[in-house]
Amino acid sequence: MFQSLFQTFDEIADPSQGALRAGLLREALHRRGLDGFVVPRSDEHQNEYVAPASERLRWLTGFSGSAGLCIVLADRAAIFVDGRYTLQIREQVDPKVFDPQHLIESPPEGWIERNLKAGAKLGYDPWLLTPSTLARLERAAAKVGAKMVAVSPNPIDEIWAERPAPPLAAVHLQAKHLAGVDSDAKIARVQQAIEATDGLIVSDPHAVAWLFNIRGGDVGHTPLPLSFALLPRHGRPTLYMDARKLSNAVRDQLMNLADIAEPDALLGDIERLGKAGAKVLFDAATVPARLTQALQDAGGHAEVASDPIALMKAAKNRTELAGIRKAHSRDAAAVAAFLAWFDAESKTGKLSEIGAVEALETFRRRSGKLKDVAFASIAGSGAHAAIPHYRVTRQSDQPIGKGLFLIDSGAQYEDGTTDITRTIAVGRPSAEMRDRFTRVLKGHIAIARLVFPKGVSGAQLDAFARQALWEAGLDFDHGTGHGVGAYLSVHEGPQRLAKTGTVPLAEGMILSNEPGYYKPGHWGIRIENLIVVEKRRIAGAERIMFGFETISFAPIDLRLIQSKLLSEPERDWLNAYHARVRKTVAPLVDPPTRRWLAAATRPIKRP
Amino acid sequence: MFQSLFQTFDEIADPSQGALRAGLLREALHRRGLDGFVVPRSDEHQNEYVAPASERLRWLTGFSGSAGLCIVLADRAAIFVDGRYTLQIREQVDPKVFDPQHLIESPPEGWIERNLKAGAKLGYDPWLLTPSTLARLERAAAKVGAKMVAVSPNPIDEIWAERPAPPLAAVHLQAKHLAGVDSDAKIARVQQAIEATDGLIVSDPHAVAWLFNIRGGDVGHTPLPLSFALLPRHGRPTLYMDARKLSNAVRDQLMNLADIAEPDALLGDIERLGKAGAKVLFDAATVPARLTQALQDAGGHAEVASDPIALMKAAKNRTELAGIRKAHSRDAAAVAAFLAWFDAESKTGKLSEIGAVEALETFRRRSGKLKDVAFASIAGSGAHAAIPHYRVTRQSDQPIGKGLFLIDSGAQYEDGTTDITRTIAVGRPSAEMRDRFTRVLKGHIAIARLVFPKGVSGAQLDAFARQALWEAGLDFDHGTGHGVGAYLSVHEGPQRLAKTGTVPLAEGMILSNEPGYYKPGHWGIRIENLIVVEKRRIAGAERIMFGFETISFAPIDLRLIQSKLLSEPERDWLNAYHARVRKTVAPLVDPPTRRWLAAATRPIKRP
Repeated sequence: MFQSLFQTFDEIADPSQGALRAGLLREALHRRGLDGFVVPRSDEHQNEYVAPASERLRWLTGFSGSAGLCIVLADRAAIFVDGRYTLQIREQVDPKVFDPQHLIESPPEGWIERNLKAGAKLGYDPWLLTPSTLARLERAAAKVGAKMVAVSPNPIDEIWAERPAPPLAAVHLQAKHLAGVDSDAKIARVQQAIEATDGLIVSDPHAVAWLFNIRGGDVGHTPLPLSFALLPRHGRPTLYMDARKLSNAVRDQLMNLADIAEPDALLGDIERLGKAGAKVLFDAATVPARLTQALQDAGGHAEVASDPIALMKAAKNRTELAGIRKAHSRDAAAVAAFLAWFDAESKTGKLSEIGAVEALETFRRRSGKLKDVAFASIAGSGAHAAIPHYRVTRQSDQPIGKGLFLIDSGAQYEDGTTDITRTIAVGRPSAEMRDRFTRVLKGHIAIARLVFPKGVSGAQLDAFARQALWEAGLDFDHGTGHGVGAYLSVHEGPQRLAKTGTVPLAEGMILSNEPGYYKPGHWGIRIENLIVVEKRRIAGAERIMFGFETISFAPIDLRLIQSKLLSEPERDWLNAYHARVRKTVAPLVDPPTRRWLAAATRPIKRP
Repeated sequence: MFQSLFQTFDEIADPSQGALRAGLLREALHRRGLDGFVVPRSDEHQNEYVAPASERLRWLTGFSGSAGLCIVLADRAAIFVDGRYTLQIREQVDPKVFDPQHLIESPPEGWIERNLKAGAKLGYDPWLLTPSTLARLERAAAKVGAKMVAVSPNPIDEIWAERPAPPLAAVHLQAKHLAGVDSDAKIARVQQAIEATDGLIVSDPHAVAWLFNIRGGDVGHTPLPLSFALLPRHGRPTLYMDARKLSNAVRDQLMNLADIAEPDALLGDIERLGKAGAKVLFDAATVPARLTQALQDAGGHAEVASDPIALMKAAKNRTELAGIRKAHSRDAAAVAAFLAWFDAESKTGKLSEIGAVEALETFRRRSGKLKDVAFASIAGSGAHAAIPHYRVTRQSDQPIGKGLFLIDSGAQYEDGTTDITRTIAVGRPSAEMRDRFTRVLKGHIAIARLVFPKGVSGAQLDAFARQALWEAGLDFDHGTGHGVGAYLSVHEGPQRLAKTGTVPLAEGMILSNEPGYYKPGHWGIRIENLIVVEKRRIAGAERIMFGFETISFAPIDLRLIQSKLLSEPERDWLNAYHARVRKTVAPLVDPPTRRWLAAATRPIKRP
């Protein structure tokens, strides 16, 4: 009945090939006179999701996480991953071949200093490192008298026998009634922002997609067309894109805005700018060192800073917001149908984690509008729910038993990207579960109810999501929220509700509000809605004030709430939220779901 | 009856000399072949309070603020000050001579780029700029083909006819019962922290004072002995200090710990280290560029980072905290006596702002233990209270009228430094005043009641002080709190309750808790206590938890509180705080003050 089309449950890591492949790589390095090679998880755009052809780190080591870096020397190799992956790495990678290291506590720089010999040449692919990462590695190598050597093409591509072809997904235009602003107006706005330079290299494909109002399908779960663009201060931009991705119709439309060139032409164009002494702005977060080097080697001046598009893209316009709200209503209907179904089905004891994921995706597909899931669903029962980034596989799958079930999922619709997490009681929850759930909910409500002046950043607000947990000596080890794109990445910067989110929040920015609590080995809780920064009118206000509009609509499990822990304003918020859920979702679902919804969103009273 | 010994009310700025002195400076620059000169407000240690001999910026321009920088070229000059001083600068400085600029919005770098010509030589005193400030100015000059030239001695000293002599205040030892830890143990601890280097140059005199358990009197309001120290990784430190500041007894004690050398010897010693290829750690916040240059020019490796002493000094030990609590009780008795007196006196309409400052200092002196005030009291009635850094002068003084009176003051005792602000109703306050006061109080209580896990920084907590104001569309434009030293600076880093306070809070750190609200041109409110980070035991806690112990004791004006705006926990906090104030202060004051105190600290009830 249910099936999953947009996500798989295969174990994708295979530690058994590591020794062989490291050996092949070492031979290739030896042939080139190199003493080692750096293999990051990145592609040419520092994407979160990369095309199969760019999964060099996974091919070499077996590691399938979304961030990491391996350094292979002649007699040893190390792989660096962050705290999310310290357990996973030990299952996916052969530690005798690749020594696992903590990316933050024992970073590559220190390892380079300890293991590289004077005179050694450490190779790297200049398309896969940003200038700042490269500079850090170069400083470390220089300290011990070694040096970093750019290597192109990547030696892994030479030994990776069945390397997939680079993706060529069709590009389509994002219509005006979805994008809200024409591409030529966006181009003019960015050109104004870069007036102090001769031009901007757009290296983040999300920024390219926003600028030209295009979407694609080159990587998983995010409608990205992999491409670079060059935007001169004045005049026509150039879009570097494989012509095979463009239908004639799309091509004609794009030619009204830009010159279209093959990706190969990019380096030559940058060198030409360099020879003319141009000052070019590059995006520090995504630009490959290859490009800044090309400009500088030719005599140009590279300014590596923030791409101004990032902030423009983050603040959604009215049209985008209207689409996003529609996408969220549609998504809410699917989630409600799933939750109603789940409440019945989970009682049988026969439902598995994969079964739940397949059902939810199927409910979403029934709208006929689902383009993709926004990420592989996180669906964990019991101890699996305590792993914030758990992905169920055929091996890890288990029946959903009594206790807590956590499901974090999202959808890509043409009019918007969704991301929602609910934690659901299966059977009778313990008092501890209810206490923790209520504290997480208090944090969620604290964020939802905030008002704050313009200029305030997410870093200043994150702690409000934690206070109720702190009061009990508890906390959670991730940020409270990330930015979300408009039919783009479900993880979008620079806005963030976290210590690191120092950018002031602006009207139209979308964030997730997802505090949690995790009891490792036992169970986990997370409650997530998406919120939009909106202007607030307050009588007598002396500042421009903002607040959050919550745009995700699904019942929050009343069986998990200890009403006496909620203040009156918190209860009022919950009841008003549930009334909105009912009003939004009831017209969109079938009668049984509607009945379930009415019960699940009933008002709670003062205890 | 009352008088002030530790602070004056003179107008210290004199704009009328600017043209003449700028002319003298230009002649001096011309003789040296320089096209301009940079005059920062700093001394050789980047101190907040500087000795009169270091007030070069004030002598030249008339500007008396605590931060600023002037650049004088042959045909123009500009003075850069931050937002606190944009009004003051226009009264203190002749704008025809020194063009006032906003330090942040229109920084010196941009001005240099616009005004310096290719080939120009811009002089600077390398003792007065840190390497990072210098580097920023150098980059700007280089962009237009100009360069920065170190000039020594400072040309201003040559033309400043009546320049005061450098200070030579006696140094005394901070006894073990106050410092808590012997200097040799501190030296050993710092040596362990700098093991990766060959030594540390201690350039912050607060750090020197902490390390050797000494105090002095070279600058106003802070018991600093101006001095540098060199701490090698192993072996005896050297303290660079004018011998005339040391009595034989103090000298003999210090010689047990360190070699004592004249300040002139420092450069030679650093050059010797450089010639030996040493790697020396310098404090980025305070080191003069002169010293890092000396090491580098001689061939050494300068590591410019945080002095590890800053964090050690910030976390007070038990003995220091015991002394600090005693100092605060003593101070509280003086503040209570003042407040009781003020309530009676302010009714006459004859009391002036200066009269209030003189009275408060006199009450503090009566303990016989007051060493100095910690800063010039901020005592403002009416519109003056809306200026967060107001300092009353003979010209600005006014009778204290009906409305609000704000007094922010602090004391230096041998056992501790205090800093407290109260806002007091004179006559019947308006509903708006009471609403704002209660919101500020809610912010103050929110900070005081917080519990949070180890690792959290002040930046994550600052917003709790603002939430009640935000809800009404209001805010205040300063941080919620700064660090405070142990009989040292009343403004101590790196701990801070502010956006910029990214250092994790640690046990024993002292901070101010001082939210405010300012209605420019009308009135102002601030409520300030000092708080200490302390460990908290919470049943079932999964993290090491911290909270704040409030150590300042003075009634918070009940006439200004709208009880219905307070939650029950907030009322409970206030009543418990007032009970502690009564218990702490009542035994230390005379019967009339005790009667006033009983009324001022009576419990408030649920409205």
